[in-house]
Amino acid sequence: MPISTPSDPVPATDTWTTQPGLSPGTPVFVGERKLDQARIQILDYTRARLDEYNDVNSDDCRRLRASDSVTWVNVGGLHDVGLITEIASVFELHPLTLEDIVNSTQRPKVEEYDDYLFIALKMLRYNAERNAVEIEHISLILGQGFVLTFLEDGGDVFDAVRRRIRLKKGRIRGQGPDYLCYALADAVVDHYFLALEQFGDYIESLDEAILDSPQTSHIQEIHRLKRDAIRVRKAVWPLREEIGFLDKSDSPLIAPETGIYMRDLYDHIVQTIEMVEGYRDILASLHDTSLSTVSQRLNEVMKLLTMIATIFIPLTFIVGVYGMNFRHMPELEWSWGYFLIWGLMILIALGMVIQFKRRGWW
Amino acid sequence: MPISTPSDPVPATDTWTTQPGLSPGTPVFVGERKLDQARIQILDYTRARLDEYNDVNSDDCRRLRASDSVTWVNVGGLHDVGLITEIASVFELHPLTLEDIVNSTQRPKVEEYDDYLFIALKMLRYNAERNAVEIEHISLILGQGFVLTFLEDGGDVFDAVRRRIRLKKGRIRGQGPDYLCYALADAVVDHYFLALEQFGDYIESLDEAILDSPQTSHIQEIHRLKRDAIRVRKAVWPLREEIGFLDKSDSPLIAPETGIYMRDLYDHIVQTIEMVEGYRDILASLHDTSLSTVSQRLNEVMKLLTMIATIFIPLTFIVGVYGMNFRHMPELEWSWGYFLIWGLMILIALGMVIQFKRRGWW
Amino acid sequence: MPISTPSDPVPATDTWTTQPGLSPGTPVFVGERKLDQARIQILDYTRARLDEYNDVNSDDCRRLRASDSVTWVNVGGLHDVGLITEIASVFELHPLTLEDIVNSTQRPKVEEYDDYLFIALKMLRYNAERNAVEIEHISLILGQGFVLTFLEDGGDVFDAVRRRIRLKKGRIRGQGPDYLCYALADAVVDHYFLALEQFGDYIESLDEAILDSPQTSHIQEIHRLKRDAIRVRKAVWPLREEIGFLDKSDSPLIAPETGIYMRDLYDHIVQTIEMVEGYRDILASLHDTSLSTVSQRLNEVMKLLTMIATIFIPLTFIVGVYGMNFRHMPELEWSWGYFLIWGLMILIALGMVIQFKRRGWW
Amino acid sequence: MPISTPSDPVPATDTWTTQPGLSPGTPVFVGERKLDQARIQILDYTRARLDEYNDVNSDDCRRLRASDSVTWVNVGGLHDVGLITEIASVFELHPLTLEDIVNSTQRPKVEEYDDYLFIALKMLRYNAERNAVEIEHISLILGQGFVLTFLEDGGDVFDAVRRRIRLKKGRIRGQGPDYLCYALADAVVDHYFLALEQFGDYIESLDEAILDSPQTSHIQEIHRLKRDAIRVRKAVWPLREEIGFLDKSDSPLIAPETGIYMRDLYDHIVQTIEMVEGYRDILASLHDTSLSTVSQRLNEVMKLLTMIATIFIPLTFIVGVYGMNFRHMPELEWSWGYFLIWGLMILIALGMVIQFKRRGWW
Amino acid sequence: MPISTPSDPVPATDTWTTQPGLSPGTPVFVGERKLDQARIQILDYTRARLDEYNDVNSDDCRRLRASDSVTWVNVGGLHDVGLITEIASVFELHPLTLEDIVNSTQRPKVEEYDDYLFIALKMLRYNAERNAVEIEHISLILGQGFVLTFLEDGGDVFDAVRRRIRLKKGRIRGQGPDYLCYALADAVVDHYFLALEQFGDYIESLDEAILDSPQTSHIQEIHRLKRDAIRVRKAVWPLREEIGFLDKSDSPLIAPETGIYMRDLYDHIVQTIEMVEGYRDILASLHDTSLSTVSQRLNEVMKLLTMIATIFIPLTFIVGVYGMNFRHMPELEWSWGYFLIWGLMILIALGMVIQFKRRGWW
Repeated sequence: MPISTPSDPVPATDTWTTQPGLSPGTPVFVGERKLDQARIQILDYTRARLDEYNDVNSDDCRRLRASDSVTWVNVGGLHDVGLITEIASVFELHPLTLEDIVNSTQRPKVEEYDDYLFIALKMLRYNAERNAVEIEHISLILGQGFVLTFLEDGGDVFDAVRRRIRLKKGRIRGQGPDYLCYALADAVVDHYFLALEQFGDYIESLDEAILDSPQTSHIQEIHRLKRDAIRVRKAVWPLREEIGFLDKSDSPLIAPETGIYMRDLYDHIVQTIEMVEGYRDILASLHDTSLSTVSQRLNEVMKLLTMIATIFIPLTFIVGVYGMNFRHMPELEWSWGYFLIWGLMILIALGMVIQFKRRGWW
Repeated sequence: MPISTPSDPVPATDTWTTQPGLSPGTPVFVGERKLDQARIQILDYTRARLDEYNDVNSDDCRRLRASDSVTWVNVGGLHDVGLITEIASVFELHPLTLEDIVNSTQRPKVEEYDDYLFIALKMLRYNAERNAVEIEHISLILGQGFVLTFLEDGGDVFDAVRRRIRLKKGRIRGQGPDYLCYALADAVVDHYFLALEQFGDYIESLDEAILDSPQTSHIQEIHRLKRDAIRVRKAVWPLREEIGFLDKSDSPLIAPETGIYMRDLYDHIVQTIEMVEGYRDILASLHDTSLSTVSQRLNEVMKLLTMIATIFIPLTFIVGVYGMNFRHMPELEWSWGYFLIWGLMILIALGMVIQFKRRGWW
Repeated sequence: MPISTPSDPVPATDTWTTQPGLSPGTPVFVGERKLDQARIQILDYTRARLDEYNDVNSDDCRRLRASDSVTWVNVGGLHDVGLITEIASVFELHPLTLEDIVNSTQRPKVEEYDDYLFIALKMLRYNAERNAVEIEHISLILGQGFVLTFLEDGGDVFDAVRRRIRLKKGRIRGQGPDYLCYALADAVVDHYFLALEQFGDYIESLDEAILDSPQTSHIQEIHRLKRDAIRVRKAVWPLREEIGFLDKSDSPLIAPETGIYMRDLYDHIVQTIEMVEGYRDILASLHDTSLSTVSQRLNEVMKLLTMIATIFIPLTFIVGVYGMNFRHMPELEWSWGYFLIWGLMILIALGMVIQFKRRGWW
Repeated sequence: MPISTPSDPVPATDTWTTQPGLSPGTPVFVGERKLDQARIQILDYTRARLDEYNDVNSDDCRRLRASDSVTWVNVGGLHDVGLITEIASVFELHPLTLEDIVNSTQRPKVEEYDDYLFIALKMLRYNAERNAVEIEHISLILGQGFVLTFLEDGGDVFDAVRRRIRLKKGRIRGQGPDYLCYALADAVVDHYFLALEQFGDYIESLDEAILDSPQTSHIQEIHRLKRDAIRVRKAVWPLREEIGFLDKSDSPLIAPETGIYMRDLYDHIVQTIEMVEGYRDILASLHDTSLSTVSQRLNEVMKLLTMIATIFIPLTFIVGVYGMNFRHMPELEWSWGYFLIWGLMILIALGMVIQFKRRGWW
Repeated sequence: MPISTPSDPVPATDTWTTQPGLSPGTPVFVGERKLDQARIQILDYTRARLDEYNDVNSDDCRRLRASDSVTWVNVGGLHDVGLITEIASVFELHPLTLEDIVNSTQRPKVEEYDDYLFIALKMLRYNAERNAVEIEHISLILGQGFVLTFLEDGGDVFDAVRRRIRLKKGRIRGQGPDYLCYALADAVVDHYFLALEQFGDYIESLDEAILDSPQTSHIQEIHRLKRDAIRVRKAVWPLREEIGFLDKSDSPLIAPETGIYMRDLYDHIVQTIEMVEGYRDILASLHDTSLSTVSQRLNEVMKLLTMIATIFIPLTFIVGVYGMNFRHMPELEWSWGYFLIWGLMILIALGMVIQFKRRGWW
């Protein structure tokens, strides 16, 4: 894919370092490399035809961009900054957009530029082995006649959308790039529900385990889940405002009939946020409950043991008394002294047990 | 009820699966089946006449829709997606609406479409056996001359409204579909109060039980109620914003004189939310109180037991002293030694009890 | 007071039941009956003259309403729904207003109807015996030339206003019904301060009692006060928004020069809310403090007792050693053995006490 | 200072009582008398001249008010309601303003009247002996050509402003009453910083004391400071909104070039609020930390003592065994039995200590 | 640098004291002196040329200000109030601006003056030795053709920007002072991420240490970090509103094409705030977790020790019994009595251990 060096708005690659004070708009890949090799996949379609390309150069891109069809360029792998810079120059992206695409710590946002819309999203995926939610950075760009998507990995998130395009299912083939953009965002948000439901199920199972027999390790697990919930919240929360802004925006890139879908997307995001907030509330309550349950079971044990000790204390005193070596201890001489003492001790023990039971301590 | 396959805006049934990335607007039933057989019931009335239908086909529906009367179609059971799709096609509902009707996890909302208003609500019902609030999904659609309602079960929620229509009670028969829609929503919200009052009574009784004699199991019960309150809050909270929006909206479907009723509905919803928030605050305070009461009663027991032990400790030491076998222990030879020691020990015990009492520990 | 059955907008009395799904606008008395017999009292005044009526029929009401004077109708006792319905029909109140008047669980609100303003308020009264705030429902209606007030009991809240009208004190006699309405609301809000100050004094006294010698029962008292504060907050909070709305409203019923008084009322309500919020914060802090003080005093006791036990443990061991019956125990034969052992034990005890003191534990 | 009785809008003094239901606008002094004798001090200046008066009657006031100069009337002592009523009648203040001036529990606010602006403020003063913040009520009134200030005491807060006027320092002499009013409010807010910094220093020193050696009394001290912070917050918080409102207001009393100073004042108030909020956060964290530190040190002590007890328990058992009086106990006959047992006991004790150390308990 | 005394708007130096009531706009240096000698550094550039000055007098400044180029005056060291007053007079700064520049406790803000924009920022720097975030005060002033920066120290924060200007990297040389101002603010905000990431790493490492083996000192460390987070939050939080305001402002000083960069800056600040809030949430959760882990480990130890004691208590009682000196104790005469008793005791001990294990206590 040998193309000419990037044109003016994109800085030269040799300036790509990470120190602050860097010229704004300098793209620096931040994150861990999830694919060995960055991949580009293009779907170009109208209602009538569909072309797929897997190996393209920038001239192809330029040509497809110019065509009347809807062009969807999907880039997997954000570490190949050179490749992404090329694409950016073909589609005339602003340097700041370029910086946001490759920075996987970028928070979700929607930005209107003169001739395109930039949407940064997070993908949530539940890792059932680690019982943790994994977060990935996704960028969508909606322009005149094209949609660009940038993912950290190959992007099976979008497989279902791809299938719908190929099979002409639903209304997607007859619609413009705005609908495609919505469908892609919707696919991402649908995954949120999937991930959050699994997360919720795990909390549920933890809840049951704790009510059953709380353990110290549960406290630490709850702490871990709380941190996860904080991370997920940070990934989803900003979207509310941003997609709401999109809903109200009058960008010429979004047809009025797509607006209704945007509202639906907004609605889903709000529901996601409510789920996360609900989990946080439940985890907080669970922490308190598990803590108090653990500590109260412990206390109950201590109380029982202490009562046992308390019963024996006077008995041990009594046997001590008759272990004394005084010359004159009349009881010692009595024939039935020993047995009388046993009787006394049994009476005392019984009396204490009865007392404890009556007070509801035992 | 054999009708033609759904027309264009509604996708074919064979695409109904649950994986994400599904074409938006695809109806997928999410929830548990609460009725064996979905049921349709239609009330068609003007001020002068009232017709009821229980078994209808889509042509009947079309005809009733076209008539001048108010047509109320009530569908019980959301699992029969085919049936609902049919009705949707008769009343020309948007695919997204269809999706929201059958998805029982949909959050409450109000949406204005071009020629109808969609209201998603939750029904609250207090289950006195499990002492828990149960939540059901209800959809209301207000169109030109008709109201559609979709419930998970047969919907005795609406029985009172039905009776009022049949008996011509109140003003309902003389009003349009907007008033019917309000009356139905109002019936749902009235049930909120019923459910929440029972919920509140249960919290009240728990409160008394805890102040009386707190137990470890109470903590877990409070945790369960907190989770319930979180669920209820999620079901009611979004309505505030949505019905408030309706109140301010200038939809031609709602006559100005019905607006005042909408304001009343809004007011009831706000009151419901305040009740839930109040319960949450009370539960939080109750958790703290019960926790500290349990732990302090325990501590008091421990303190008492420890004081008993403390009294015996020096006594046991003393009897130990005179159990020693030293050759030269003058006290042992004294005639009154044994009785003197008893006297000493009684003095010590009394002294300690007095000390404890004086310090307010006993 | 036998009048004709209520006219159209008001439903017949036989439909007054409490089940949900009731026709909206049906008045149902909710609350406990606080007066044996509902009472009506009317003050009709201009700057020049003042007439008082205590026993009236609806024709009188109609006549007074039509006159140019300011007519204040005060109804004590909400359980006589028939009576209130009559009055409502004379003053042409909307059925929803009627419902709100008799429902004593109605939250505070302000509603503009076509030709009158409806204000629902709560009255706060501090019960010094139970140390609790009692809440009563009050409705004010401001119409063209008249003010209606509905109270659960006879309403000594308004006595001061009545006296001012009779004595021509202040500016009240020269003003219209809007000023009267303000004066009545102001009298209610002035009572808030009274009730809240007494409430605050009780918290203050509890605070001092706790810092002095905290007890378990204090925790439960704090819980009760927290619940009270939640109730009071619910009764006062909604007024902020509502009276603020009134302040900004341009209702023709409120003369501009009365607006400045409404602003003052708003200001007082905000101050009331801040007081309640302050109490809640203080109660929360007090709960924590009392809890930790109680538990630490207990712990200190336990520590002291444990140290006493710890001192005796080695001593008891030592006397046990010399209580052993081994044939060859050289120390037992020593003449001064017994006294040496006493010396050793005293040394050990002293050493431990010194250690404890030095470490600051004692 | 004998003047005619107050004119119409101000009620006669004999009606000044405290019961609610009082005619609104009735001035009632609420607070504790801080000065024996109320004092009036007037500064009347233009850029060129400055006149000071200390003993004035109302005719003087009227004359000064009518003059072109800037007239600043400072009244110290709010308990002399008669005097304040006089001044109010000279400057034609609204009765509600009069009520707010003498009510020292009035919350901070800004109110625009037809021909003057009323500002109620709180003065904060740190009492280094009691380590508490004291709060005083201050009212500022900005009218056409005059500024009135009312303080609970003589008002050394304003000394610096007075000096600047006398010495012609800064820009104050060349400016109108709006700048004077700003300068006075600014002097008050400057004192906030002073008081809050001392408050913060005390929290800081408490923090260090607690980290050093936490004590039970610290918990109560934190509780006291929390209550103080709540009081201070209530005194400062409302100003934010009010001064912000002033900043945006287009009152003809405030010249545009003074607006920039108002913005600066707003900025200072926001900073003050942030300081208070920060202190509250720190106190909350400090409470938790001190609580857990105290309780953990205690627990450590208990653990140590318990371990000591645990070591002696088996030893005491062993010596008990050889104190038994069985006829046939072979060990007792052994010559080295006693010494062997000592050796065994030392081994057991050592073993346990080693175990404890290895597990990190000791 | 001997220049004429400051002109009118700037007060004379002899009035610089710290007491409140000072003439507003009086610059008073508040903070600790971080540089021995204040330094001025000027960069004056157009796209074509770049001049640097290190030793300037005010006439130079005036000349540079008048020129067409972009003039960046960087002042290091805020304690030399005389010097800063000079510069302020050259660039005609408002006295309030001057006050804000030298007051290092000034909260962040943006203020529009007639012919310049004033931005107060905080610089965050992570001190890896003390594991704490250090905060410094920075002021930016954007005027027609010039940018002024005031720092507490020499300002290596801006080194990267300086380098970019010198090397003509990026777009900075071809842009106006608004872009320079943005670039400088951006450099500061970039440092936020650096500092916060190191802060986050330290929290992370503390988290691991606590989960591994929690200690009492960790609680205090968390307290310290919480206080740090509160300080950082106070330094960053106000910027959100302020920069957002700048984004929406239509100041002629900011070219529309720079607006997009301002939006990006806003976005970064929001992300910073979310990081800080996230850290606060994590610290709160960590506090709870570490507290409960510490206390539960302790409790477990106590439980174990108590169980050991409990096992020995009946055994000690038994040996006490057979240490009694009654004349008639049949068991003592049995030949195998001693060994039977040993057997009994071993049985009891085993039975208790089994019980404990079965109940899951051990």
